[in-house]
Amino acid sequence: MEIKERILEKAEALFWKFGTRSITMDDISRDIGISKKTLYQHFVDKDDIVYQVILYRMDKNRENVSCHISTAHDPIEEILLGSEMLRQQLSDMNPALMIDIQRHYPRAWEICTEFKEKFILESIRLNLRRGIEQGLYRSEIDVEIMARLRVELIRMAFDTDVFPKGLAAMIEVQIQLLHHFVRGILTEKGSIIYNQYVQKYQNVPASTTR
Amino acid sequence: MEIKERILEKAEALFWKFGTRSITMDDISRDIGISKKTLYQHFVDKDDIVYQVILYRMDKNRENVSCHISTAHDPIEEILLGSEMLRQQLSDMNPALMIDIQRHYPRAWEICTEFKEKFILESIRLNLRRGIEQGLYRSEIDVEIMARLRVELIRMAFDTDVFPKGLAAMIEVQIQLLHHFVRGILTEKGSIIYNQYVQKYQNVPASTTR
Repeated sequence: MEIKERILEKAEALFWKFGTRSITMDDISRDIGISKKTLYQHFVDKDDIVYQVILYRMDKNRENVSCHISTAHDPIEEILLGSEMLRQQLSDMNPALMIDIQRHYPRAWEICTEFKEKFILESIRLNLRRGIEQGLYRSEIDVEIMARLRVELIRMAFDTDVFPKGLAAMIEVQIQLLHHFVRGILTEKGSIIYNQYVQKYQNVPASTTR
Repeated sequence: MEIKERILEKAEALFWKFGTRSITMDDISRDIGISKKTLYQHFVDKDDIVYQVILYRMDKNRENVSCHISTAHDPIEEILLGSEMLRQQLSDMNPALMIDIQRHYPRAWEICTEFKEKFILESIRLNLRRGIEQGLYRSEIDVEIMARLRVELIRMAFDTDVFPKGLAAMIEVQIQLLHHFVRGILTEKGSIIYNQYVQKYQNVPASTTR
């Protein structure tokens, strides 16, 4: 791995864990074991690192999604695998990170927004259309409304105005919203296949006493 | 109907149709056919009218919901009837009204928020619990997460950031989100009953070519 990529991966790990605000150029160079001079040879400043980390992450995400689409057996497995990827990524993310980026790194935030609005939205649209064609999703669903709903659900799970902290773990919220979303679009044929995957992946929410 | 109630109903109709911003005390008194003096005997100013209209509307909504709960045969019919009520109310509402109130009438907005967060949220919680008890909703759903999701879905249909204007009629968005929500929580037993109601109420979204 070339040095620039190594810096991006290490910086990403630090941001994911601690947010962007508290991490300095010193922290990054110390963590990687390089001099600040080397760090500045590759990046103008911290803004630049945040921007390039996000760019790097979104590229990786695009690759991962394409990979999942090609390995999945059908649109239902595709949506479950894609969400599992998301879940893994979020599970070790500092919840303040996205808010930090939104407020303080407009260029990086633009990349996130574009990823969400263009790439994720379009991936979901395609998934829904394939599912309808294959008789797994109900043909009555409005693809555009449902695709935008799904994107909004991903965002919503982080929204402490909707799901106050302490109500439930964010991961549990994500899982509940995902499975509820999928169940809501399935045909009977789709339900049978979905139930097989639920047993396989076992990330279906546990019963709750609430 | 006493004069104050008549003013509230007429003012509500004007606000619903035109928003609050463009409607003056003159418009209201002219529309009802009373003098401005009479109007000012009952209300301090337009702020006061907006506040009392919202208070009046939320009281009516509470009554209507209680009425639906008592006439519905089961939790599924209850949720469909409640949403039909909402749909009727929204169908002739100026989309700018809620944004107007949020920005310019903080006291009235507080009443809306309280209604949403306390009354609607609690009604949905109770509905979900009843549905689970009766075997109509899946026992794996997290009542708190799903109740908050439903409240957020009602708001979301108005959100032009999520569903840009012209994408689909707001009513169509509401209907899609409602039926998707209900389908996502049903057991097999619930599905059978739900399908009967869908035919009865016929507010299920039509097939779309999109």
